[in-house]
Amino acid sequence: MALSEPRISLYWKNVLTEQIGEEHGISPAQLEGLEGPVAKAVEAVNAARAETPYRDLPYRTEYRDEVRKIAGEVAGCENFVVLGIGGSALGNIALQTALNPYLYNVDAAQRQRTTTDKKTVRLPRLFVFDNVDPVQFGNFLDWVGPQLDRTVFNVVSKSGQTAETAAQLLVVRKLLLDRLGPKVLREHLVITTDAETGVLRPFARNQNLRSLVVPAGVGGRFSVLSPVGLLSAAVCGIDIDALLAGAAAMDDRVKTPVLRDNPAALIAAIHWHYYHRSKPIHVMMPYAYALKDLCDWYRQLWAESLGKAEARDGSRVHIGPTPVKALGATDQHSQVQLYREGPNDKVFTFLQVDQFERDVVMGPAEGELADLDYLAGAGMAKLLNAEKTATEYALLEDQRPCLTVRFDRVCAETVGQFFYLYEAATSIAGRLFNINTYDQPAVELGKQATFALMGRKGETYEKLARAITAKMRVDPGFAV
Amino acid sequence: MALSEPRISLYWKNVLTEQIGEEHGISPAQLEGLEGPVAKAVEAVNAARAETPYRDLPYRTEYRDEVRKIAGEVAGCENFVVLGIGGSALGNIALQTALNPYLYNVDAAQRQRTTTDKKTVRLPRLFVFDNVDPVQFGNFLDWVGPQLDRTVFNVVSKSGQTAETAAQLLVVRKLLLDRLGPKVLREHLVITTDAETGVLRPFARNQNLRSLVVPAGVGGRFSVLSPVGLLSAAVCGIDIDALLAGAAAMDDRVKTPVLRDNPAALIAAIHWHYYHRSKPIHVMMPYAYALKDLCDWYRQLWAESLGKAEARDGSRVHIGPTPVKALGATDQHSQVQLYREGPNDKVFTFLQVDQFERDVVMGPAEGELADLDYLAGAGMAKLLNAEKTATEYALLEDQRPCLTVRFDRVCAETVGQFFYLYEAATSIAGRLFNINTYDQPAVELGKQATFALMGRKGETYEKLARAITAKMRVDPGFAV
Repeated sequence: MALSEPRISLYWKNVLTEQIGEEHGISPAQLEGLEGPVAKAVEAVNAARAETPYRDLPYRTEYRDEVRKIAGEVAGCENFVVLGIGGSALGNIALQTALNPYLYNVDAAQRQRTTTDKKTVRLPRLFVFDNVDPVQFGNFLDWVGPQLDRTVFNVVSKSGQTAETAAQLLVVRKLLLDRLGPKVLREHLVITTDAETGVLRPFARNQNLRSLVVPAGVGGRFSVLSPVGLLSAAVCGIDIDALLAGAAAMDDRVKTPVLRDNPAALIAAIHWHYYHRSKPIHVMMPYAYALKDLCDWYRQLWAESLGKAEARDGSRVHIGPTPVKALGATDQHSQVQLYREGPNDKVFTFLQVDQFERDVVMGPAEGELADLDYLAGAGMAKLLNAEKTATEYALLEDQRPCLTVRFDRVCAETVGQFFYLYEAATSIAGRLFNINTYDQPAVELGKQATFALMGRKGETYEKLARAITAKMRVDPGFAV
Repeated sequence: MALSEPRISLYWKNVLTEQIGEEHGISPAQLEGLEGPVAKAVEAVNAARAETPYRDLPYRTEYRDEVRKIAGEVAGCENFVVLGIGGSALGNIALQTALNPYLYNVDAAQRQRTTTDKKTVRLPRLFVFDNVDPVQFGNFLDWVGPQLDRTVFNVVSKSGQTAETAAQLLVVRKLLLDRLGPKVLREHLVITTDAETGVLRPFARNQNLRSLVVPAGVGGRFSVLSPVGLLSAAVCGIDIDALLAGAAAMDDRVKTPVLRDNPAALIAAIHWHYYHRSKPIHVMMPYAYALKDLCDWYRQLWAESLGKAEARDGSRVHIGPTPVKALGATDQHSQVQLYREGPNDKVFTFLQVDQFERDVVMGPAEGELADLDYLAGAGMAKLLNAEKTATEYALLEDQRPCLTVRFDRVCAETVGQFFYLYEAATSIAGRLFNINTYDQPAVELGKQATFALMGRKGETYEKLARAITAKMRVDPGFAV
């Protein structure tokens, strides 16, 4: 990617003692002290590249080509519905919010695109269901029912055992079979799953369904740049080439073991430093509606990767920062009172956009509105960025450490850079925290318990069901 | 409200030593130790009722009547747009998500209602803008422009000085004047503001606009049951009588100084207890899509009320829990790894629904899907509640304290109860934390700094602008 391409950059001056003082700032000596551990962590992460195949997703052109082929085949639909949860949904949602218009689903005009050969096409609406709420899903089914013949469902689960996604599939499959019949199942179901194992691969094969692969060794939270995240993006007109090119460009920037030159290493090191200095809460606060759902993607990545009971040496550590999603300017009127005056237990990361793709200019303020005259004729872009600067300034006055990820503009290139930046930062942070970044052992018991409560057969589940019933019996003496 | 009316209740057994052990549970002696301070706090809150007029909002029938009158007058519009931020938006959003269908804005059928005299009416779409993002707002204006004559804007700001809301007003006012002319401004703008002071009251009066009152002494975060929250609810067909009746019913339950009988006191006491025992993070996790935006309302209430630098005696304390929003079952696949294995630094509050208003039944699972047979024929409601029980069980196994607010069902009565429960809990918690619950001094500097950066005239702002420029000058050596 040429230097003139849009970029993101990390601004990290506002964590230093010179900006926020001795007690809470990082001193030059502390910064120097971070260099050694960080260099080792980056080198370890680089050396483990073969075991962390998410690192090479930007270059896996075969995935991109398969995604594009299927996206082309389903392009005529009116509704594209992703059924997935966690890493099979959060990247998809983040991409859609970041790169498609606010009223994309509501306003057909905002779904219109002109192709290279000057034809006007209308992209499908996108829905991503990552829950099993009967009221929400039922209302959706009421609405989509009459247009089922123009609707495609993308079921995303590596194992196919994920209870929520499995439940959605059983509902939708029956609906499709009842309303449209078995012959057209292929037209309405796309399966994204493991290449070989699990429930969904044989289902896709035997039912002759279109399918994509969740790459081996890529965990859900690192899968946004695989077919998991790419298909819905491509179907909705997002430039997945630019997305991957952005990620590849960031790959070049996060390999160096030199702390000051590596934005991922700085993110990892600064948060690790503060975690051990009474700042375990890591707030991400975008000043742009488009970037807000990147925070939910980050929340999973950071929490599930770094929240671990055991260190790599097997010792019990119960470690892990708590990521928090906020939104500027909105949460200034909700959270900033706490952020400034409450305990100094947080590290703040702002996301800021230098060039918004459009502006909205404020009208005049005369007569009774004369007090608002300072706004008249200004643009909302200026106001939003002024609010960010104002909030950060106020936080610095209270010695709160602040980072900013600046986006030249919000586009597929910069969003691709962002994903890759935080994935690399997470891998490096995992080394610094000295935990296994890529597993999630604690999720298992909840899954087993759900199976047990849903009456799944087998000695293990039946025994667990009895234990749960005993523990969870409602005691009316404690219901008030 | 009769006993048979739908209720919410607090289930609090799963914070006790008998459920989660000595180290992290509340012992019988600790519980007894809480009784005295809590009784004093409740009595102080009860005694201060005259100075906390939010307490009487459920009984202020004059507000309800004024709201209903204006709601009737604007009922024919197609789009109702709230312009507000913080407490002037979060309650409105929470009410809409809780009490109207998921696709209310998208699907005209979900906006249709039958009146008592059997006529079919279509309610307006609702938009709440609580930000100044030019891309988001610009996309909305593109869409709403051609239907401006069928659109009503409700500008909500007590002072009228709130920069974000003022900016939106200046944009919308110019648009209305340019497109529709000054004569019909009254048809398209409803002002909710202070009864006497501020920028908007004279504006409303001189322009002959419809207006409502933000009651004196009611802070934004306590205003959802005032005209601030009620108008958009009434316009969108929500039963505001039932909402207020629910709140009034809860008022009866939160007055008693007896800890075990008072759900608000229990919420306050349990969180206060744990705050001082290394659990400063307070997670609210609804297992219902409808309840998810109640968490954002709660986030403001809890953070802005309790996050304070000074105690009531003037000493510096820098106190305040950090509220966190999560969503079940979705966040099981994002946050639960951290919640179980990370530091035991959180108190969890689940919101659970006993009777969902509808269910969605899973289809059969034969052939390649036979592994999913345990789900076949079951309802999503059962699955969602099983997930909640499973997650809570898993958390209890790791000695994490859990509360549950159970909703008999989600309806205006129970949502009204919920608002009032948490408002009262916040007042009681504020007494226990010994801070001023009702101010937000730290928000001021950010506001002033925004004024300064937007070039507002006056010595104070100009001086501040110079200070900000010096502090916030971007140093390219720290941008990587």
